[in-house]
Amino acid sequence: MAKSPESEHPIKAYGYAARDTSGVLSPFTFSRRATGDKDVRFKILYCGICHSDLHFAKNEWGMSTYPILPGHEIVGVVTEVGNKVEKFKVGDNVGVGCLVGSCGSCQSCANDLESYCPKQILTYGFPYHDGTYTYGGYSDHMVADEHFVLRWPENLPLDSGAPLLCAGITTYSPLRYFGLDKPGMKVGVVGLGGLGHVAVKFAKAFGAEVTVLSTSPAKKQEALEGLKADHFIVSKDPEQMQSATNSLDGIIDTVSASHPIEPLLSVLKPAGKLVFVGVPEKPIEISTYSLIMGRKIVTGSATGGLKETQEMLDFAAKHGVTADIELIPMDYVNTAMDRVLKSDVRYRFVIDVANTLKAP
Amino acid sequence: MAKSPESEHPIKAYGYAARDTSGVLSPFTFSRRATGDKDVRFKILYCGICHSDLHFAKNEWGMSTYPILPGHEIVGVVTEVGNKVEKFKVGDNVGVGCLVGSCGSCQSCANDLESYCPKQILTYGFPYHDGTYTYGGYSDHMVADEHFVLRWPENLPLDSGAPLLCAGITTYSPLRYFGLDKPGMKVGVVGLGGLGHVAVKFAKAFGAEVTVLSTSPAKKQEALEGLKADHFIVSKDPEQMQSATNSLDGIIDTVSASHPIEPLLSVLKPAGKLVFVGVPEKPIEISTYSLIMGRKIVTGSATGGLKETQEMLDFAAKHGVTADIELIPMDYVNTAMDRVLKSDVRYRFVIDVANTLKAP
Repeated sequence: MAKSPESEHPIKAYGYAARDTSGVLSPFTFSRRATGDKDVRFKILYCGICHSDLHFAKNEWGMSTYPILPGHEIVGVVTEVGNKVEKFKVGDNVGVGCLVGSCGSCQSCANDLESYCPKQILTYGFPYHDGTYTYGGYSDHMVADEHFVLRWPENLPLDSGAPLLCAGITTYSPLRYFGLDKPGMKVGVVGLGGLGHVAVKFAKAFGAEVTVLSTSPAKKQEALEGLKADHFIVSKDPEQMQSATNSLDGIIDTVSASHPIEPLLSVLKPAGKLVFVGVPEKPIEISTYSLIMGRKIVTGSATGGLKETQEMLDFAAKHGVTADIELIPMDYVNTAMDRVLKSDVRYRFVIDVANTLKAP
Repeated sequence: MAKSPESEHPIKAYGYAARDTSGVLSPFTFSRRATGDKDVRFKILYCGICHSDLHFAKNEWGMSTYPILPGHEIVGVVTEVGNKVEKFKVGDNVGVGCLVGSCGSCQSCANDLESYCPKQILTYGFPYHDGTYTYGGYSDHMVADEHFVLRWPENLPLDSGAPLLCAGITTYSPLRYFGLDKPGMKVGVVGLGGLGHVAVKFAKAFGAEVTVLSTSPAKKQEALEGLKADHFIVSKDPEQMQSATNSLDGIIDTVSASHPIEPLLSVLKPAGKLVFVGVPEKPIEISTYSLIMGRKIVTGSATGGLKETQEMLDFAAKHGVTADIELIPMDYVNTAMDRVLKSDVRYRFVIDVANTLKAP
């Protein structure tokens, strides 16, 4: 008989988990494996709340195995290292993002693109190499193979830096990969939420000229003043869109709700790139004519590999890029989830885990 | 009052034109302009029949002004040149493809990408610089600015080379632009018609390993034996598609009928490119998830600029690439159009204009 989460490993752990599709999180005791040769054990300090935490908690993607203990924007401090660990020592600040494992031998892994490995192991809700399920960062501590642990840059804030581990790398990676990371590039960002606001900050840090495209005119001030975007377009206003025809080198589309794609293609220059980082429930619809007349590109991007995630954290530290966050106590998590669903957060919740998660 | 097609220009001309949305072509007398300083006048020898000729003849794209005299795969022999013409002399064999004009000053024109100029002038059915409508290659002769006239390579057949002026450049250009023109590249071609069969030939000439994807198992033999494709997949057979998962660097999709896109994305490698050169009536539908999990690219490509079209003709001559054609007399054109509609041609009709178009 399979052992229970509480007894399958030797080290006691606790956190908040969802037990069913209500997605409601409640205190949960479980266990973590002993520190392996290449493992890093760390006390969790902060953990961001990502919209996908909701999807998993409610099994909206149909791939959840309960209990689900979410959290993949995790910052902590090392408490123990395995005897073959080379990169970390006790007392180091570290981060863990969306991944804790991959096959290590495929083409993607060989190219430092673990996030495209078909056998990638997500930080929570996935079977680990040993067959037991992974539990995320809404918990007291964690243990992970050092390959999947990030070095935390000295001057990067622990709390407002945490969301970079998912929202940050998810927007940094396509800006880099699709060549939108150069001064003078004209970059659009669709949607001003957790991902979008970080996309604006990275694009600005790269020296790009940034246009925020949003359905909500109310976001103009935050976009231009708060986030220092250069332009703001109400994407459902045909006149404003018309005035931007053929003007952008690329667009990072962070919106997971279904929305019209053709108008976005129209504001791309020839050879411009529309990059999706969100997954709308319904398929997107495109006339191939809009692609053909300008060799425009529609594509997508996942998170990034570990090497690039480290590069992103170092870049963020150097350029002062962090998320705008609302720091919350652990027991506020269900209210926070409801507010995420209503986009009622500017722009990311981060749980103050170490100070507010009570031991059972 | 505007002059009639017959009297608006000084030089008498004749051909076959459609007068209404029936699309039926019948003998038509009109006129062509006098040879301008930069113009090349040529007797038409051969003209290919492109599926878009049907769309225009029947106004299926809603942009036709009747009469429509189709034909944009035109090969002829020069009979007169303007006094500032530098590239051609009387007696030269020449070609004219889809374009006879563009603005000459935009970014696309500056980069030899006239086919992406927003003010491009199509070879037929479009207002020329002087305001009169253009008439295509289903006619006795033509006059065009030398910039839009191609030098015909000595050893390229005049008849079976004609379709290269549209079907050829439309497939050659994306293979080149999207980097699928290298030995060892694994290239898929969807649809084995006028465009598809030339795509296979060019991809093979570039040294690529070519897979034909077709809904019709009956095309296997022609694909492998006739066109020397390396592999053949029945695209509606899930097992065959499954066996090709993540195997192709790029796909040229030549099919204008609506068809499922997700299976095509699944056979692309990570970072693979799905390039549309046809325009299905309904928008294509894509889950962004399929793009994200591999940074796969969906894009499109029009014809090519004049410089690249010349390069394509020279490459075709060097590597023996021509279309497989059925040579027909002018008065067979309506029957041929019906057969094109039924895909009943292997693979392109070419009209033997000089020998069969009767003077009125």
